[in-house]
Amino acid sequence: MLRLTPEEIRGAVVAALREDVGDGDVTTLACIPEDAVGNVVLRAREPLVLAGLEFAEAAFRELSPNITLRQRASDGEEIPADGTVLEVTGPMRALLTAERVALNFVQRLSGVASLTRDFVGAIAGTRARILDTRKTTPGWRRFEKYAVACGGGTNHRMGLHDLVLIKDNHLAALAGATPNPIAAAVDRARLLYPHLKVEVEADTLDQVRLAAEAGADFILLDNMDPETLRIAVQTVAGRARTEASGGVRLETVRMIAETGVDFISVGALTHSARAMDLGLDTL
Amino acid sequence: MLRLTPEEIRGAVVAALREDVGDGDVTTLACIPEDAVGNVVLRAREPLVLAGLEFAEAAFRELSPNITLRQRASDGEEIPADGTVLEVTGPMRALLTAERVALNFVQRLSGVASLTRDFVGAIAGTRARILDTRKTTPGWRRFEKYAVACGGGTNHRMGLHDLVLIKDNHLAALAGATPNPIAAAVDRARLLYPHLKVEVEADTLDQVRLAAEAGADFILLDNMDPETLRIAVQTVAGRARTEASGGVRLETVRMIAETGVDFISVGALTHSARAMDLGLDTL
Amino acid sequence: MLRLTPEEIRGAVVAALREDVGDGDVTTLACIPEDAVGNVVLRAREPLVLAGLEFAEAAFRELSPNITLRQRASDGEEIPADGTVLEVTGPMRALLTAERVALNFVQRLSGVASLTRDFVGAIAGTRARILDTRKTTPGWRRFEKYAVACGGGTNHRMGLHDLVLIKDNHLAALAGATPNPIAAAVDRARLLYPHLKVEVEADTLDQVRLAAEAGADFILLDNMDPETLRIAVQTVAGRARTEASGGVRLETVRMIAETGVDFISVGALTHSARAMDLGLDTL
Amino acid sequence: MLRLTPEEIRGAVVAALREDVGDGDVTTLACIPEDAVGNVVLRAREPLVLAGLEFAEAAFRELSPNITLRQRASDGEEIPADGTVLEVTGPMRALLTAERVALNFVQRLSGVASLTRDFVGAIAGTRARILDTRKTTPGWRRFEKYAVACGGGTNHRMGLHDLVLIKDNHLAALAGATPNPIAAAVDRARLLYPHLKVEVEADTLDQVRLAAEAGADFILLDNMDPETLRIAVQTVAGRARTEASGGVRLETVRMIAETGVDFISVGALTHSARAMDLGLDTL
Amino acid sequence: MLRLTPEEIRGAVVAALREDVGDGDVTTLACIPEDAVGNVVLRAREPLVLAGLEFAEAAFRELSPNITLRQRASDGEEIPADGTVLEVTGPMRALLTAERVALNFVQRLSGVASLTRDFVGAIAGTRARILDTRKTTPGWRRFEKYAVACGGGTNHRMGLHDLVLIKDNHLAALAGATPNPIAAAVDRARLLYPHLKVEVEADTLDQVRLAAEAGADFILLDNMDPETLRIAVQTVAGRARTEASGGVRLETVRMIAETGVDFISVGALTHSARAMDLGLDTL
Amino acid sequence: MLRLTPEEIRGAVVAALREDVGDGDVTTLACIPEDAVGNVVLRAREPLVLAGLEFAEAAFRELSPNITLRQRASDGEEIPADGTVLEVTGPMRALLTAERVALNFVQRLSGVASLTRDFVGAIAGTRARILDTRKTTPGWRRFEKYAVACGGGTNHRMGLHDLVLIKDNHLAALAGATPNPIAAAVDRARLLYPHLKVEVEADTLDQVRLAAEAGADFILLDNMDPETLRIAVQTVAGRARTEASGGVRLETVRMIAETGVDFISVGALTHSARAMDLGLDTL
Repeated sequence: MLRLTPEEIRGAVVAALREDVGDGDVTTLACIPEDAVGNVVLRAREPLVLAGLEFAEAAFRELSPNITLRQRASDGEEIPADGTVLEVTGPMRALLTAERVALNFVQRLSGVASLTRDFVGAIAGTRARILDTRKTTPGWRRFEKYAVACGGGTNHRMGLHDLVLIKDNHLAALAGATPNPIAAAVDRARLLYPHLKVEVEADTLDQVRLAAEAGADFILLDNMDPETLRIAVQTVAGRARTEASGGVRLETVRMIAETGVDFISVGALTHSARAMDLGLDTL
Repeated sequence: MLRLTPEEIRGAVVAALREDVGDGDVTTLACIPEDAVGNVVLRAREPLVLAGLEFAEAAFRELSPNITLRQRASDGEEIPADGTVLEVTGPMRALLTAERVALNFVQRLSGVASLTRDFVGAIAGTRARILDTRKTTPGWRRFEKYAVACGGGTNHRMGLHDLVLIKDNHLAALAGATPNPIAAAVDRARLLYPHLKVEVEADTLDQVRLAAEAGADFILLDNMDPETLRIAVQTVAGRARTEASGGVRLETVRMIAETGVDFISVGALTHSARAMDLGLDTL
Repeated sequence: MLRLTPEEIRGAVVAALREDVGDGDVTTLACIPEDAVGNVVLRAREPLVLAGLEFAEAAFRELSPNITLRQRASDGEEIPADGTVLEVTGPMRALLTAERVALNFVQRLSGVASLTRDFVGAIAGTRARILDTRKTTPGWRRFEKYAVACGGGTNHRMGLHDLVLIKDNHLAALAGATPNPIAAAVDRARLLYPHLKVEVEADTLDQVRLAAEAGADFILLDNMDPETLRIAVQTVAGRARTEASGGVRLETVRMIAETGVDFISVGALTHSARAMDLGLDTL
Repeated sequence: MLRLTPEEIRGAVVAALREDVGDGDVTTLACIPEDAVGNVVLRAREPLVLAGLEFAEAAFRELSPNITLRQRASDGEEIPADGTVLEVTGPMRALLTAERVALNFVQRLSGVASLTRDFVGAIAGTRARILDTRKTTPGWRRFEKYAVACGGGTNHRMGLHDLVLIKDNHLAALAGATPNPIAAAVDRARLLYPHLKVEVEADTLDQVRLAAEAGADFILLDNMDPETLRIAVQTVAGRARTEASGGVRLETVRMIAETGVDFISVGALTHSARAMDLGLDTL
Repeated sequence: MLRLTPEEIRGAVVAALREDVGDGDVTTLACIPEDAVGNVVLRAREPLVLAGLEFAEAAFRELSPNITLRQRASDGEEIPADGTVLEVTGPMRALLTAERVALNFVQRLSGVASLTRDFVGAIAGTRARILDTRKTTPGWRRFEKYAVACGGGTNHRMGLHDLVLIKDNHLAALAGATPNPIAAAVDRARLLYPHLKVEVEADTLDQVRLAAEAGADFILLDNMDPETLRIAVQTVAGRARTEASGGVRLETVRMIAETGVDFISVGALTHSARAMDLGLDTL
Repeated sequence: MLRLTPEEIRGAVVAALREDVGDGDVTTLACIPEDAVGNVVLRAREPLVLAGLEFAEAAFRELSPNITLRQRASDGEEIPADGTVLEVTGPMRALLTAERVALNFVQRLSGVASLTRDFVGAIAGTRARILDTRKTTPGWRRFEKYAVACGGGTNHRMGLHDLVLIKDNHLAALAGATPNPIAAAVDRARLLYPHLKVEVEADTLDQVRLAAEAGADFILLDNMDPETLRIAVQTVAGRARTEASGGVRLETVRMIAETGVDFISVGALTHSARAMDLGLDTL
């Protein structure tokens, strides 16, 4: 499972604080005495799966060496409405200036984790697993994939470099030169990148068969209806692992899972999750 | 209106490509000949307000000096389903490797712009204007605020530095020391930051009155029902500009606008917009 | 008041040390044993207002974890000739290598603070306040504005982004299109940047009147003689705050203040302050 | 002579623009149409030696690809009052937004060059040369040393790494261990850094003699009166080059030069030069 | 095959120039007139396989916009002694200042490529392929792996992220908890990283069998003599691909290849290649 | 002697870890429990001179705050085969993930130090000293020069900025304009860079004489046979220091040293040292 390092978390938080604070939190500097001390809790205002708590912690810590943090929950945990996830004590100026950045991270990442958990829950009991995609916010790929893992999803490739995924466009480019572009593409990938797995996108059952015969490690079954998916799985017959993809929704995901596919990839996990509602309450 | 610079657009795109491509787009390198040339169009797959087109352009240009771009629409424009917004010709490798990054930017920013347009449309004919908030994706504030402007919204403060916004927490810290914390806070802000405007958050009509008397430039009317908003506006009586805020939804925004407030700020514009569906089609 | 963060201070000091030390302080490496320990004090060699002490501290600390610092004065304090502001104990190598960088910061910033104090002192008892300008050393704006605040001055806008300041060149560009460019410019600024204040530069009493009528928050009275300033203040009649500007000198500043203006901005504070004389003495 | 690279000039200008412009030049964006074109000249408002013209050029060019520049003078040239040094044509927005940054660089660097020229002129006809010191603005060493060279001065060491300069503190550290610390220090430096020159600071004629005998390449004659300087030069008798240093002023520099020293180093060139007055005039 | 981008090549060259040139190439600035033009060729002084030519080109181009380059050979080509690979015409100052950096890159990378070619040549006619390792110069992994590819070698994993390679230390950590650590480790890797291949290091024939049964994609045969390698290959029987590793030398590599292994990995390609002799000759 | 700073060591190690680890050490994350603790020693597997131990330490420390290090040897020390240089205790994950980066640094730098020691040993008892050159790995100059010093060598100039070294190409450029280019070049260098030493490359005895007469601090005797070197040394007669250079090998270095030259520079120290064999053993 993807692990974030303390350095990358801190790096993102420092950049976010710079973006938000600019030349200074003028309101806090004007109104709050330097020696005022406060005590706040971070609370869920709706049920959610927590992700990104360490970002919030880093935001507070970054603004003062005198912050005390008490974790009351962990990433991946299901939090009820009103559940407390963090207590923070320290200089009031630091608490107020860090608040929005802390919330912006944890609200968004918990949004991804919570949506993922919904999909994972919807297919419980089947053999399928939920995968993420590359449809992530630029600059946030590792964070959002981490949130997917917090929600119980499985991470697909990190980027264009760690899996060969041959799509229709790639095949089209080879079509003129060879009678079997799928086999040609798989062979070329095996030759150049022997240490990487190869996945082939198939839009038809014919392509499914050719991909399996070419020895692909994965076959991506793109935009197929459940019945076609079922036949595709039978066609593959264990020679490769299968991934269903394309417009998967919470209402349809279980039907897809029951076709016997190994994986279901869901772009919405990262491209359309809404922020969860969490807030800071003063004690 | 917020303007993005070519440098910041390119900077974000370069970082996104590094994130996605890593040590190389292995599929493209294996399957696509170096001299293959292609021709694609970027099309809306649903009606939307376009934002972020220059990010997509920068992604293609970054990967090859031989890219030709033809803009078919501009940011801020309403695009129908199937509307073409960009034509791209160039090395096939560059087209394929840049595709996902280009889409990730334009889908997200168009999502923000489209949602903003919905809110702006909903209050057409009233005097109110739609404002964004600081509930933006860390690292994306300027981009998302730009998308809000593309959608017809008005930008609120960029961060903690360019407007004094006195909230309940700030007032609480002054409460012990002075009988009228609102007046005290406004005075302190005026003294320290004479070149900045001052906004005061009011939760009650009493606070509204005190804020107006203290000479606030803006009064934020937080979580008030329409009737209270109406009275608040009358209370202020033009001494300050008024901003309604708190859980504003598409269904309720018009009713709020009709209370006579000057501004309505909407966090959802940036924290919960879903990505719009755009895609690349090969010609 | 502008606050510098420990990170930005350290960042500037690290860059300065890299600039000065390059591949190594060859003299110290050749002559000073690694285990030699020393004890120095930082002393004013002329009366001054201290600013930048934390930069000096950061320079010593950066070069050794075994530095002990004892602050004997604080930024903003008036130091007599021979007054000690800091005691430093630690490895002799670190003391010698950091010396010049530490001095370069504190000498320059104390120069700005001291000159500011002279101006502030010259107008004591009037209602006017001394403002800085954007005529700062590139890369040093926040540091120099901080030093101005240490000297008792008030900070004007941080840059081009946090105040609309309409000058003659801006008005000239609108002159053809509208009979009242001042009103037009103020209106446009209000529309696009409702959260920012607007200042208008006026070279004539006629412009002063138009600016006041247009609702400017500030009116900059540029290069006016005291008598004109006095009439301008009366013309404004409290509708806006007034700022006198242009070639202000120590000899003339009081006369200007006595015209009743709210602010006097002085470019020389940051563009022509000489370095104060401070030095390290070995104990 | 020190040469600045286009990259370092551009780097400093980009940072300065970021510092000054922040989230945008709101005044220009509000008032100036995007297609307005202008024409300005950069003019001296007092006699000066020009330095830093390329910084000004870079500032304009950075803000628009459509800037046309016509150089009317070169760095190092003496410019009369009202002399034009640069013509700039291009988008009015770029001209207005870049103005202050362009001026801040060229005013400061011309200040250093002009003061240097005064010192150089004051010793004309003697054999001495004017040297700069390490008393430069942190972050600006190369720029200020370049300006010194524009003014006709000679650059001393760039930093702690390219010349061994043994001062009293270094000698004090060796005093207990050896009867002749000067000879010991020079020997150690020769051993460790055979490719570097060695300078020794001397406060007394006795030290001058020891330094010459130790084979120092340079002897720094610190804070000596003219008569002592003269004897010191005779004592050295050509065995090393001599550098006078310490509180050198325009009024005293010629007397010092006439003692026969090879170099005179002047901290004020870089630590206390005032900005020259140059401005942009619209044509 | 690994492709270097123009940006990363330029980035490395700029850093190298900064490292070498520092505050300026004092010799060239002192001796060479600014307008002197020269013409040099880059020549092999011994037979070699060329790699890194674009680094040399970038070094010259970086120092002047007026450089003309004529490529006379390409990376991967075998160059005889005295063979010319590049002609460069341009300002003499740029030629002289860039020379050492240009040579340092091309000499080193050609060293890696040439040594690789020796290994590849030694096993010509067998089915085995030569792999590189992670024993690369920190900061140079992509460059050195590129040079390996220029020499005809095949790139192994780029780092710890794109292949699961289970070594004895990993197995030891699982030994207490399970009777078959190899199967357990492969299963865990399959679960967490379904999109990655799995390789298992085997020191004994028993481990070879267990790894094959566990379904490893690759089996690393570590430090086995040729006879054992042969039996290992038979044991695997095509269920996985085999990689011989450990102290492979030019004298022994063919014997190893003839055992039937698929790959032979050679650390010396990158950790101990000597620089090839190339130099610049003035025409 | 060149000293590396903790910051630059850490900087290089962090970059190397990023390069090697990428998105995560998937093998270790899959196989090693987070709470597993281990204990390893870094051992020489052949006799060597140690250099770079702090890089290895930094690699382990970077990956966990819970690492305990016990140094068993120091840089510059001769280590026998099987000698232990470092003990490391801490989280097994950190030990495994840092291993290769730690080894890559210490193996390479010890390679440079060991080869240097061989050259230094070969000339023991003569007056000559071994110098390094600028033939270093781009990005590693300071590290490799440090390793040379660990091996007992003396550092030559750091780059093009801290010594004027006039080579044949420089002289050729002056040849047309003056009858004595060596004298002209030395004079120009003295004028522009009075604080730097000047070395002149001589290919003939005639040039040696001219360089000595011109007052060069060093004369580089390029590619001369021992007999010519001897005459060159006599010709110089102590007026400058002499450096022999060009194709120096372990077999020939003593003969060169015995000619009486002061320095012998050896490019192979840094451009062709092989990595020493060190490894981690689990206890």
